[in-house]
Amino acid sequence: MYQLHIANKNYSSWSLRPWLLMRELGIDVEEQLTPFDTGSSWATFRAFSPSGRVPCLIDGGLAVWDSLAIVEYLAERHPGVWPASANARAWARSACAEMHSGFNALRSECPMNCGLRVRVTSPSTPLQHDLARLEELWQQGLETFGGAFLAGDAFTAVDAFFAPVAFRVQGFDLPLGATTGAYVKRLLALPGMQDWYRAALAEPWRDEPHERETLAAGERLADHRHAATP
Amino acid sequence: MYQLHIANKNYSSWSLRPWLLMRELGIDVEEQLTPFDTGSSWATFRAFSPSGRVPCLIDGGLAVWDSLAIVEYLAERHPGVWPASANARAWARSACAEMHSGFNALRSECPMNCGLRVRVTSPSTPLQHDLARLEELWQQGLETFGGAFLAGDAFTAVDAFFAPVAFRVQGFDLPLGATTGAYVKRLLALPGMQDWYRAALAEPWRDEPHERETLAAGERLADHRHAATP
Ligand SMILES: N[C@@H](CCC(=O)N[C@@H](CS)C(=O)NCC(=O)O)C(=O)O
Ligand SMILES: N[C@@H](CCC(=O)N[C@@H](CS)C(=O)NCC(=O)O)C(=O)O
Repeated sequence: MYQLHIANKNYSSWSLRPWLLMRELGIDVEEQLTPFDTGSSWATFRAFSPSGRVPCLIDGGLAVWDSLAIVEYLAERHPGVWPASANARAWARSACAEMHSGFNALRSECPMNCGLRVRVTSPSTPLQHDLARLEELWQQGLETFGGAFLAGDAFTAVDAFFAPVAFRVQGFDLPLGATTGAYVKRLLALPGMQDWYRAALAEPWRDEPHERETLAAGERLADHRHAATP
Repeated sequence: MYQLHIANKNYSSWSLRPWLLMRELGIDVEEQLTPFDTGSSWATFRAFSPSGRVPCLIDGGLAVWDSLAIVEYLAERHPGVWPASANARAWARSACAEMHSGFNALRSECPMNCGLRVRVTSPSTPLQHDLARLEELWQQGLETFGGAFLAGDAFTAVDAFFAPVAFRVQGFDLPLGATTGAYVKRLLALPGMQDWYRAALAEPWRDEPHERETLAAGERLADHRHAATP
């Protein structure tokens, strides 16, 4: 059976992608959660991941150590990872790759922190640019392929890639249009997303750098985690 | 025929990846070069690329707008893009995806600027970390698959993804081991790399932000471009 190394569900946005994809597609996997160390987790994560980062998928003796590479690895072995139509697939891969190497302002100014609610006091220009591009990209997918998900009727890897953004939208109450707002609600309602969220709220760990970055965005409104941080 | 939108050959590291891959695999393509604007090129590039970034591959009415998505698009249509063995392919995709979203210190402290030679005066800790990881990753590929290229005997997409790093190694004289140093020499000697390099040196454009970033790395030693910057 596959093993998937991930970090804290409350914080680890890259881990969520393949985890959710496998969960929604019903691909059997054994989860291995290693919490972040304070500061760098490189030394700890190197025990199982060549890059010192998570996620990392283990298949027998083979390590596949990046969320996008994991997706392509699974796509060679399981149906439904990418959309069936070649055009939708090209679009989905472009959107995933754009997310993989971009949206830096969204990533750093609105880090994934599932349990927290923060009001963004003054969104930077780069953040506004990222949000406008996100709105446009999602709108394009939903319109062009005409389904409930970004590249058609079925949940595929491109939705898994933007699933961490759904938690960011929820956590920072980021503004979206009606169509894209409804799409985020659909993502948040997925059984896999609900399971991940519940587990995130129940986690006992708090990572100071992640907490600090989240609160740097603005005014703290609420903390839904069970053992609330002081 | 495909069209490939790229920017200045002297600077545009992301453009080089699919350009070189297509050139080395003999995939017919019409090159469309649009020089960077001073400041942001977003408005200009938006005329052909949905993300406002290059590279962007046009196939009939379809735009594929990210270097990694372009590679996967080509892999569905042409042989030889990825290694034939499943294990080598998984390794190659992990390495590409790690490069796509990482190596940020290498990217920002040693930007690709084909014609310039600069001595790095004091490499930062993150840069040293990136260089150590690069050495280890390349060494692993060359040893495990035992070929002249990273994932075996043939040049594949993973070599194209690291080709911009070869120009960085040359430009900043970055330290490498014997095996990995020889690999960089092989990359630089590829016909496609030599063509790209010659064209880069002949370009008349200078982009101030790129020039400034390059020189921030240390001491300027030489400028091999034909119309040398003052
Ligand atoms: N490109 C990688 C990025 C992975 C990444 O950066 N993961 C973070 C956690 S979400 C990590 O492992 N950080 C290590 C650390 O914090 O020391 C992927 O998509 O898998
Ligand atoms: N993830 C994208 C990144 C592309 C990218 O950032 N390209 C740069 C040029 S090398 C760009 O277009 N920059 C726009 C600008 O400078 O305004 C890819 O791999 O294609």
